[in-house]
Amino acid sequence: MYEEKLIVPRPTIVDRQFTKPLLCGPGPCDIWPSVAEALSKPVLSPLCDELFDVMDDIRAGLQYLFQTKSKLVLAISGSGHSGMETVISNIVGPNETILICCRGIWDDRALEMSKRYGIKTKVHRILFNNTFSLTLIEGIVKILRPKALFITHGDSSTGSVQKLEGLGKLCHKYGALLLVDTVVSLASEPFFMDEWGVDGVYSSTQKGLSGPAGISPIAFSERAQEVIKKRNFKPPFYFDIELLAAQWNCFGNTRQYHHTLSPPLLWALRSCLKEVINETLPKVWARHAETTAHFHKRIEQLSLELLIPKPEDRLVTVTTVVLPKGYDYMEFVKYMRNKHNILIFPGLGPTVGKALRIGIMGVNSTIQVADAIADAMADTLIALKKSSL
Amino acid sequence: MYEEKLIVPRPTIVDRQFTKPLLCGPGPCDIWPSVAEALSKPVLSPLCDELFDVMDDIRAGLQYLFQTKSKLVLAISGSGHSGMETVISNIVGPNETILICCRGIWDDRALEMSKRYGIKTKVHRILFNNTFSLTLIEGIVKILRPKALFITHGDSSTGSVQKLEGLGKLCHKYGALLLVDTVVSLASEPFFMDEWGVDGVYSSTQKGLSGPAGISPIAFSERAQEVIKKRNFKPPFYFDIELLAAQWNCFGNTRQYHHTLSPPLLWALRSCLKEVINETLPKVWARHAETTAHFHKRIEQLSLELLIPKPEDRLVTVTTVVLPKGYDYMEFVKYMRNKHNILIFPGLGPTVGKALRIGIMGVNSTIQVADAIADAMADTLIALKKSSL
Repeated sequence: MYEEKLIVPRPTIVDRQFTKPLLCGPGPCDIWPSVAEALSKPVLSPLCDELFDVMDDIRAGLQYLFQTKSKLVLAISGSGHSGMETVISNIVGPNETILICCRGIWDDRALEMSKRYGIKTKVHRILFNNTFSLTLIEGIVKILRPKALFITHGDSSTGSVQKLEGLGKLCHKYGALLLVDTVVSLASEPFFMDEWGVDGVYSSTQKGLSGPAGISPIAFSERAQEVIKKRNFKPPFYFDIELLAAQWNCFGNTRQYHHTLSPPLLWALRSCLKEVINETLPKVWARHAETTAHFHKRIEQLSLELLIPKPEDRLVTVTTVVLPKGYDYMEFVKYMRNKHNILIFPGLGPTVGKALRIGIMGVNSTIQVADAIADAMADTLIALKKSSL
Repeated sequence: MYEEKLIVPRPTIVDRQFTKPLLCGPGPCDIWPSVAEALSKPVLSPLCDELFDVMDDIRAGLQYLFQTKSKLVLAISGSGHSGMETVISNIVGPNETILICCRGIWDDRALEMSKRYGIKTKVHRILFNNTFSLTLIEGIVKILRPKALFITHGDSSTGSVQKLEGLGKLCHKYGALLLVDTVVSLASEPFFMDEWGVDGVYSSTQKGLSGPAGISPIAFSERAQEVIKKRNFKPPFYFDIELLAAQWNCFGNTRQYHHTLSPPLLWALRSCLKEVINETLPKVWARHAETTAHFHKRIEQLSLELLIPKPEDRLVTVTTVVLPKGYDYMEFVKYMRNKHNILIFPGLGPTVGKALRIGIMGVNSTIQVADAIADAMADTLIALKKSSL
């Protein structure tokens, strides 16, 4: 009886063949075999013990990962950007001030997001291939007295890592909270939430954790919790950390339904955390450091220049490489994909036309992968020199 | 070198054995075997053709599912509640009026969300076991002249379905847009977005589509697009439909990165849509109608009462059943799980202590499943009568 009422006919969805490349962009990277398996574990119903166990496992794993004793630790049902929006919208309200330290495109995202909430935004911008001086930041915080300072730990658009040790103490001295993006640094670069005085932090699963995107680990310090309790504004419903804390039972005796969690993503994140726990954080960090040091040596042997001048500023997960004059970045990326089935990325934001972005992280952080990329780059340098120079 | 700096030791994550029950609550329901398989398909990188193809497949499938020729159709990276927040926050701004038709808990959620944006909220509330009269709604819309009217098509907290035919025309007559929740009705109850004049609609994947939660189909009419173009406010960044439309290439020639999509959820949704397309919408609707009619007959044979008095108001996916005096709803639900490994739910919101909520939808909408539930209920009625009455 309904056939004649259908104004949109059935579309045709065809299955296409393709060969997945080795994922060596700034993310997503490849996933652990255990995570691929975990994705098809049984659907869990809300408000049942099996789901609560998985949520508790995830919270325990994230406390280890962030190195925090704070209880307000959970995962947002959305991409890393939903984590960013959760951290900002729960801490800073309309007419309050946020100081955003800008060096890459993620900081500009934080700026754009903040403006939408009527937050007063102040920007401390530096050159894209640099990192921030804590002394300079202190001078600015002292004058502006913002409610919070936003900074990106690892920046995938530039390939730099920001030193955070001491920054929390500095912010707290002037009554500011410290908000940190660790999307492309967590489970790769050393990170100590409590020791560094970080008050709000979020990450993502498709980078160092080698899981699928779509679920965003997040944590707030006790200091942040006090601020949240006293705030006179409300964040969007989906991002309200108080409601989420009640769903995730962060403080005990609450299992209140807030929204329907995604079972495959919960299983996957749990599996990622098991990988890190089994290897241990110090060994995960050491593996990333060794792999990338080896890769940088290979890059130097190819007579290529790293975009980030100071070695201590170079991010362990994403390496930005400058090509010699005459090479085209898009052409280089395409050749790497077509000839070697390795996916690397061109520059983004401030690094467009200035560098390749090569990601080696998570399950891919091995000498073998680093060598495979370097070998393919060596071939590509020759091939494109012949044809275009 | 980092071992001694770890203040949080490694937690232990143990694998627990459990038997997944047949999922017959109001959702999530079980997933198609093809969807379980799709979840572990390869990770797709942003801005690559393979991802674009999957996104295009999903948009075509959703246009069929919603029965709309509108181009502004895509999936939000979040649960159904993120779809709700996207629809509301993109259409109604601070100091504008929304009229919310309240009969179950999802409408109260829409109310709570709206208030957070400084939207003026007006409520038209009816008794939970009833549905709305279009004549009554017209009287209210005529007086209030809201920017939008929010209504839930299928309500999983009460087990009722709202007639929507004619409602769009009525709203448009008074300059209002029609926003509809189809979380528990899409791909189960007939739905015609364009014909019914729906301006904003969202759904979820873990109900009639038999997929995993975490990705929310959404569509806006051309009328809604005009309103969005002229609005003088901005929704949260994560929910901004203009940015999302540019990422999903809704209007052509845009593939702008907005956030990282979740490959397993995209593959899963695509696979759900393929199931519906292969079966065809009229046959999917007929199967749900037949299964549930059979189940209702079995319920009557058990001398049990359906909570929703009018047959035409009864939702095809979720049946609310009143137990005879003396039975305890929680005890009944527990016995069904422990003895028969079938998960059904007690009442929620207005139906707490008033009804069981039994979901038969998607892959589970078969005579076999309906009979299995009814048989188990017959046994439970006897077992709990012996022990407690």
